[in-house]
Amino acid sequence: MTTTQNPATQKAADQVLAELVETERVHRLLFTYAFHLDMNHPDEIAALFTEDCYVSYGPDFGAEGREAYRETLGGIGSFFAATSHHVSNIVVDFGPDLRTATVRSSLYAWHRYTRDRPDGHFFGQYHDELVNSGDGWRFARRELRAAGVVDFHVKKQIPIGRAES
Amino acid sequence: MTTTQNPATQKAADQVLAELVETERVHRLLFTYAFHLDMNHPDEIAALFTEDCYVSYGPDFGAEGREAYRETLGGIGSFFAATSHHVSNIVVDFGPDLRTATVRSSLYAWHRYTRDRPDGHFFGQYHDELVNSGDGWRFARRELRAAGVVDFHVKKQIPIGRAES
Amino acid sequence: MTTTQNPATQKAADQVLAELVETERVHRLLFTYAFHLDMNHPDEIAALFTEDCYVSYGPDFGAEGREAYRETLGGIGSFFAATSHHVSNIVVDFGPDLRTATVRSSLYAWHRYTRDRPDGHFFGQYHDELVNSGDGWRFARRELRAAGVVDFHVKKQIPIGRAES
Repeated sequence: MTTTQNPATQKAADQVLAELVETERVHRLLFTYAFHLDMNHPDEIAALFTEDCYVSYGPDFGAEGREAYRETLGGIGSFFAATSHHVSNIVVDFGPDLRTATVRSSLYAWHRYTRDRPDGHFFGQYHDELVNSGDGWRFARRELRAAGVVDFHVKKQIPIGRAES
Repeated sequence: MTTTQNPATQKAADQVLAELVETERVHRLLFTYAFHLDMNHPDEIAALFTEDCYVSYGPDFGAEGREAYRETLGGIGSFFAATSHHVSNIVVDFGPDLRTATVRSSLYAWHRYTRDRPDGHFFGQYHDELVNSGDGWRFARRELRAAGVVDFHVKKQIPIGRAES
Repeated sequence: MTTTQNPATQKAADQVLAELVETERVHRLLFTYAFHLDMNHPDEIAALFTEDCYVSYGPDFGAEGREAYRETLGGIGSFFAATSHHVSNIVVDFGPDLRTATVRSSLYAWHRYTRDRPDGHFFGQYHDELVNSGDGWRFARRELRAAGVVDFHVKKQIPIGRAES
C-alpha cells in the first residue's frame, strides 16, 4: 500500500524532527560542559569551544580564543575543592539550516574553595551562541550573567539586566 | 520508489512527533515565566496567562483573572532586589488534541530582598493547567506548593502534601 | 500523490523519533522518583526499580534487590520532615533496540530533618542503568555520587571522582 502523504508535509515533519534532535544535542553540550567543569577536566571543557570563541564570566574576567580560554581554566583544580553546576530553564532558538543556535539557560552553582572561606553560590543565566559546522555543536560565545551571588569569589558580575521599578 | 509504509503507522508517528513538539513548547512557557519573573517584567509575565486564569502562590495569596493577577505582580520590583527561579523535573500530560496540558515541575527559587533581611529560599512544586487555543500555550491555572522554605517572606504555603508516616 | 521518500530514510527517521520518545520517558522516570521521594511514597519509589536492582547512596549505604531496597526507604517519613530533589543535566545513552539506557544527571537536594539540626544540602550526580522490558523503564542500578555536601546526615559519600591537579 502506498501512502497518500504529501511530500511537502513530510518535509516539514522531517525539519521538525531534526530540530528536536538538535535541541537534545544542544542540551547535551551544556550538560557536558557542566560535567567536565565539576570533574576538573579543563582540556575536555576547552574542546567544547570553537577556535575563535569568546567567553566572558564577568566584566573583568574572560578570554578570546580557545587557547586563551584554556589558560583561564588552569586554576580550577587548585582554586576549588569542589563545584556543582545545575543547569535548567534551557531555551534554544536555531538559525538557518540548524547551523547556529542562540541559547539561554539558568545556572545555580555551588562552590567549595580550597582556601578557608565560606562556600560560594552563584545564581544566574548563561547566554550562548553555538555553531555546528558539521562535526557537532560548540560554544562560539558564552556569557555568564548573575542574578545574584552569595560569598562568591568573583566580586563583579555581568548583571542579568533586571528592570528597575 | 514508493514507500510501503502504512498510513496508520505514519499517522501515529505524526501524533507522537506533535506531542514532542508541544512538550518542548510547554517547557518554554515555564522557562519564559521564570525568565520574566527574574527580569522584573510583570507585563510579560501576565501575558503568559489566560484572561480568566487562576493563580495561587499560597493559601492567602492568589488572584483570579489576568488583570487581578497583574496587580499582584506590581510589587516584584520594589520588594525583591533579585530573584533566581530554577525549574526542573517537568512532567507533561496532554489532553485531547493537544489543546490542554497538566504539568508538574520542581522549583528552587532564591530571593534577595530590598529590605535588610536574609535571602529567602523556596523549595517546591508548580502544578499547572495549560491551554492552547491556537495561538500558543498559556497558564489557565498555576499553583505553587512548598516542600519547605528558608527565611521566606510568605509565612503560609500550600504544602506539597507529603505523606505522614 | 505517492511520496518519493526513500524507505531507508523513513526507517532512520522512525528510529530517531523513537529515541526522542524514550528520552522523554527516561526523564519522566527520574522525575517520578524524585516526586515520590519528596512525597514520602516508599512503595511508589520501590516500584520504579527492577526486582534485582542495585542501589547505592553511599559506600556504606545501599541495597541489593527491590525488597531490600524497599526496607531502606522505611525511615524516610520519620527521619526527614521535608526534602526537595532537583534533577537536571540529564544525559541519556541508549543500548541496542532501546531496551537499556545509561543515564547521568545532576542533583541538588535539600533536606529538613525531624531532629533539631541544620538543613542538609546534597550536590552531586546520579549514575543510572535503566532497563525497559516492554512495560516501561525501571532502574536496574542507581548510584548517587557527591560533589559535596553541607550539614548532611550521611557522613561518607561516593565521590564524583573529580580530577586532582
